Amino acid sequence: MSVSIKLIPTRVFHRVHETCKDEIQKLTLLADMCRANTLAIVKRAGSGHLGTSFSSMDLVAWLYYRELNTLEVGLDSPDRDIYFSSKGHDVPGLYAVFHALGVLSTEKVLKLRRLGGLDGHPDVGIPGIESNSGSLGMGISKARGMSWAKRYRNNGGRVFVMIGDGEMQEGQNYEGLHAAVQHNINNLTVIMDHNKVQSDKLISEIMDLGELETKIRTFGWHVARCDGHDFNEIQKVMAELAKVEDKPKFLIADTIKGRGVSFMEHPAALEMGKGLYPWHAGAPDDASFIKGHDEMLHRIDEGLKAAGLDPLELVDVDEEAAKKTNLEGEPVSQAAPLRKIDKAAREYVTKALGDALVEQGEKRDDLIVLDADLAADCRLRKFETTYPERFVQNGIAEQDMVSMAGGLAHAGLLPVVSSFASFLASRANEQIYNNATEKTKIIYLNHYAGLIPAGPGKSHQSIRDISLFGALPNCVILQPACGAEAKMVLDWCVEQATDNCAIRLIIGPSPRLLELPADYQFTFGQGVALTEGNDATLFAYGPVMVHEALLAAEALADKGFKLRVINQPWLNRVDNDWLKNTIGDQKNVFVVEDHAPVGGLGDTLLNAISELGMAGDCKLTKFAVEGYPACGTPPEALRFHQLDGAMLATRIQRLCQES
Amino acid sequence: MSVSIKLIPTRVFHRVHETCKDEIQKLTLLADMCRANTLAIVKRAGSGHLGTSFSSMDLVAWLYYRELNTLEVGLDSPDRDIYFSSKGHDVPGLYAVFHALGVLSTEKVLKLRRLGGLDGHPDVGIPGIESNSGSLGMGISKARGMSWAKRYRNNGGRVFVMIGDGEMQEGQNYEGLHAAVQHNINNLTVIMDHNKVQSDKLISEIMDLGELETKIRTFGWHVARCDGHDFNEIQKVMAELAKVEDKPKFLIADTIKGRGVSFMEHPAALEMGKGLYPWHAGAPDDASFIKGHDEMLHRIDEGLKAAGLDPLELVDVDEEAAKKTNLEGEPVSQAAPLRKIDKAAREYVTKALGDALVEQGEKRDDLIVLDADLAADCRLRKFETTYPERFVQNGIAEQDMVSMAGGLAHAGLLPVVSSFASFLASRANEQIYNNATEKTKIIYLNHYAGLIPAGPGKSHQSIRDISLFGALPNCVILQPACGAEAKMVLDWCVEQATDNCAIRLIIGPSPRLLELPADYQFTFGQGVALTEGNDATLFAYGPVMVHEALLAAEALADKGFKLRVINQPWLNRVDNDWLKNTIGDQKNVFVVEDHAPVGGLGDTLLNAISELGMAGDCKLTKFAVEGYPACGTPPEALRFHQLDGAMLATRIQRLCQES
Repeated sequence: MSVSIKLIPTRVFHRVHETCKDEIQKLTLLADMCRANTLAIVKRAGSGHLGTSFSSMDLVAWLYYRELNTLEVGLDSPDRDIYFSSKGHDVPGLYAVFHALGVLSTEKVLKLRRLGGLDGHPDVGIPGIESNSGSLGMGISKARGMSWAKRYRNNGGRVFVMIGDGEMQEGQNYEGLHAAVQHNINNLTVIMDHNKVQSDKLISEIMDLGELETKIRTFGWHVARCDGHDFNEIQKVMAELAKVEDKPKFLIADTIKGRGVSFMEHPAALEMGKGLYPWHAGAPDDASFIKGHDEMLHRIDEGLKAAGLDPLELVDVDEEAAKKTNLEGEPVSQAAPLRKIDKAAREYVTKALGDALVEQGEKRDDLIVLDADLAADCRLRKFETTYPERFVQNGIAEQDMVSMAGGLAHAGLLPVVSSFASFLASRANEQIYNNATEKTKIIYLNHYAGLIPAGPGKSHQSIRDISLFGALPNCVILQPACGAEAKMVLDWCVEQATDNCAIRLIIGPSPRLLELPADYQFTFGQGVALTEGNDATLFAYGPVMVHEALLAAEALADKGFKLRVINQPWLNRVDNDWLKNTIGDQKNVFVVEDHAPVGGLGDTLLNAISELGMAGDCKLTKFAVEGYPACGTPPEALRFHQLDGAMLATRIQRLCQES
Repeated sequence: MSVSIKLIPTRVFHRVHETCKDEIQKLTLLADMCRANTLAIVKRAGSGHLGTSFSSMDLVAWLYYRELNTLEVGLDSPDRDIYFSSKGHDVPGLYAVFHALGVLSTEKVLKLRRLGGLDGHPDVGIPGIESNSGSLGMGISKARGMSWAKRYRNNGGRVFVMIGDGEMQEGQNYEGLHAAVQHNINNLTVIMDHNKVQSDKLISEIMDLGELETKIRTFGWHVARCDGHDFNEIQKVMAELAKVEDKPKFLIADTIKGRGVSFMEHPAALEMGKGLYPWHAGAPDDASFIKGHDEMLHRIDEGLKAAGLDPLELVDVDEEAAKKTNLEGEPVSQAAPLRKIDKAAREYVTKALGDALVEQGEKRDDLIVLDADLAADCRLRKFETTYPERFVQNGIAEQDMVSMAGGLAHAGLLPVVSSFASFLASRANEQIYNNATEKTKIIYLNHYAGLIPAGPGKSHQSIRDISLFGALPNCVILQPACGAEAKMVLDWCVEQATDNCAIRLIIGPSPRLLELPADYQFTFGQGVALTEGNDATLFAYGPVMVHEALLAAEALADKGFKLRVINQPWLNRVDNDWLKNTIGDQKNVFVVEDHAPVGGLGDTLLNAISELGMAGDCKLTKFAVEGYPACGTPPEALRFHQLDGAMLATRIQRLCQES
């Protein structure tokens, strides 16, 4: 990174807070200063959600500077006011506010999305964070639990939860709306950051929310509305809400996505992006960063001058540290939208699969693709634009999408259901089961599977999806290791599979351009050897872990230790004869999982080895993502879990010596 | 069963249909005749949902006799009108209508909830059934898929889906409401059987639906309302809806739960049950059956006379067959509510756990119990009435319940979340994961775990829940084998567990009163031997499978084959030293799962045996629920899956001889 990153230090926030006379002027300045720092730490992190951090910033600033007693009574006080964001991806803005208030150190905010730093989505391990979020739609329910507990314990304090408007498409919100009224929860305020844009399109285009205000009222809530950027209006509406004591409260705050940087503001930004909002996630390129940051700093200095206050002071962020930023493996939308990527050098299995989908779509008109507002990250845009009549946008509503697919399958169509693995395999698990019991065929694309990218944190890293599909009797689970195999996998699922299929895909670029053996025949239950060797055998799957496995083989080769690496794309089906021949008289057999140790390929192999009666002759050892997935850069997370090539080499050699 | 069961044969329905001049009079008679047969087949089956079959009957009769082209164009015609029930438990009424129309034979309807007969909840394998249901809230989404497919394929026919009012508490419905409008689905009609009562209480008492009509309109739907028992009104409203071609249609039909049998009708029945509706599920006792059936037959004969038609003819149901009815293992609410059960002879682990909950509740005021409208089946009533301030009713909204529990846990409370395993572990899986990532402690009660009872069918039989919790790093999964152990399990989870706990429980009575060894110490990761023997070792868990395991041991003992049966309540944790000693030099080791073969105790043991390096000396064989769980009586289902004692004995002996 060539640009230097500057932060407004906490002391300057304190000074403005103490010296600015006009309350509204003060809050406007403080919020804008937090925006400037948000942009800086996201640029530094190389990723993060700017659009929503900016749209919700004025409300968050109001809450912490004017509304909440939290800092006064202490972060651990049972009588504290509680605030958290249900959508969670606006957390960079919240971190900036915490930094302004001295809750988070400068050192800490500079470690956004780094190991031991600040998670890409909220985690309760971080001071001030009240709830883990990032998977959408849970906030109202959770906040209601907190409110219920306060009443039960006779504790003081109110509960405020921020939700997104796109998030409102998740059905759980409506369950929460019902229950809050039934349970007479009156110390709860939901604030909707109504910026009208979800990941990259207008809400109204993806899944319109209908008559929002009336709708919420029919659930029995007190509904208010205000301009989420006008502190006078915010002050007025908060005063009004404070008087309402017999109902849960729902504030619809009309906001502007990207507020604070002219070219990031909707609708201008949406027009610039030709209908696609470019600033939902990801760090801006250097030019955009400098332009946006300068624009804000200039406005802030003007404001300070107008308020008769000293000009801004900035601190330089250590440039060396900045250079450590590693974008490898960030999702498309989380990479800088305007950043130049050398396409030739980078392969995405998601793109390869998206292209294969289009090819299949050309061959057969019964192939229907369903998306839950992740078309860009999941590389479905090409199918969407090529076959708009066969592309179904379900919005952020995975359960509805999966059950709709069940209905399509009944009519003899072949639904291909796509989302992030964490949201699809888990959130819609019962719907997937219900479909499967009908013996129809549906293909589930589980994007963002595995440990990497590790920046976004636990809510997005999917290390349980194999186990969540595994007990379905009629579902084959596969993961391709490269673009070429991605096409083989999809073609097999579409043309040959009779059961349901769950395809796992990493969301980021492949760490290496993998060359599959020229004579590789993609065959049911059979993997393929990528290296030869008699000292040990290592099974791996997916671009990330196959890459690390090959790195391990390379490292061991230098020591004269010959590791045989097997790419096994079939995660819950294995051809026993092939396995018998593959293992042969090999004593030391290993498997590296891009998954938890439970319910992955390791258990499939363990069962097969046991069936084959080979368990006495060979010992299978699993290397897996133990515990919860670490947040950080890919190298940090892989090293933390001892799954990087170097660690795998060390572990394998040690275990072989012991055996 | 001492009463004789009589059915109105199909030919009588045909005769009435052909000879009755007045349309309204005819439909009233046909619907009532179907009700009489519904009561008969449910009594015969020993279980089934009467209240809702009766409340929706007039609407279903209207649809098949007047509205749908389905039978005309054929059940497989792509141009057929499609009808299905999302709630699904009203299927006995639908079967009766199919029988009346000749779609289902008399022999078939007499096999309700029997192997090879009619599933307790809809299954597409049955003629006329368009969708598997029984797990709630999926119908609107699925029906939308069917409607979308008709439009895409230019097929004729409309789609009608029946939903329950209690079911409307599931958030997925609201996702479906949004999408139907966004997708311009106009050939879809949702009919709500608005009988005001959910499993056993008033909707308004459990989770009120607010301003229902206005609410649905805010989503952009055309909403109509009518008396669901008045054929004149039904005719009028259906004609009105037929004219609406620019919106999806939502008909709120006001109905009476139990309609057609005076003492089963709400509100009378609710008063009789002192606030609890007694006829939601389960077969009536003999006296109530005779009383209700006679009342209906009498009314029907009066109606026939008034219409100038011949009196009813009835056919006797083979009494021998009737005697085969086996109620073992049906859930409380599915057993006849007034049936006398010899309590002393029957143990329910659910009751034992419910009692233990009350005891713990007395010791600590931080224990909060959350229910999703299954308090009766899950035996939570005692806690509910003893500690009403600590019992939270969430309605049929598992995701909301689980996330609320997450909020409670943050406040230092200990939430105990209860539902059926199928709905809790699966529907709320992502919410459970989100809570678990916060490292709080929550206890999940997974009732109705396993294969038995097998009458209700796939939607209720939970054979995947261990696998759905298994990959969480911080969740201990347990299942008690008897009432005494149920208390040990709960006490351990409440008092000693630091991680989350998932407790599996069978919903029915224990097949035997199990005596645990007097010196049994409930110890982390350690099971206990129930029989001694050196010929083979069989691990089992839960009352159903431990019983079958002991039956196998008894059968084998007669042949001089000594089988050691180990009760292992720890399903994903095992004490390796204990396991090493327990297996010793035993070559033949078996495990019987009340679960699918993937992700259960077998995989836990397989991993431990591999770690211990014992895999070469002993061979572990799994006996599990292969494929989808069979529907039928417990003996039928256990035999079908070769998991009954006799089959286990045969399989074990054969495998030992082979080894």
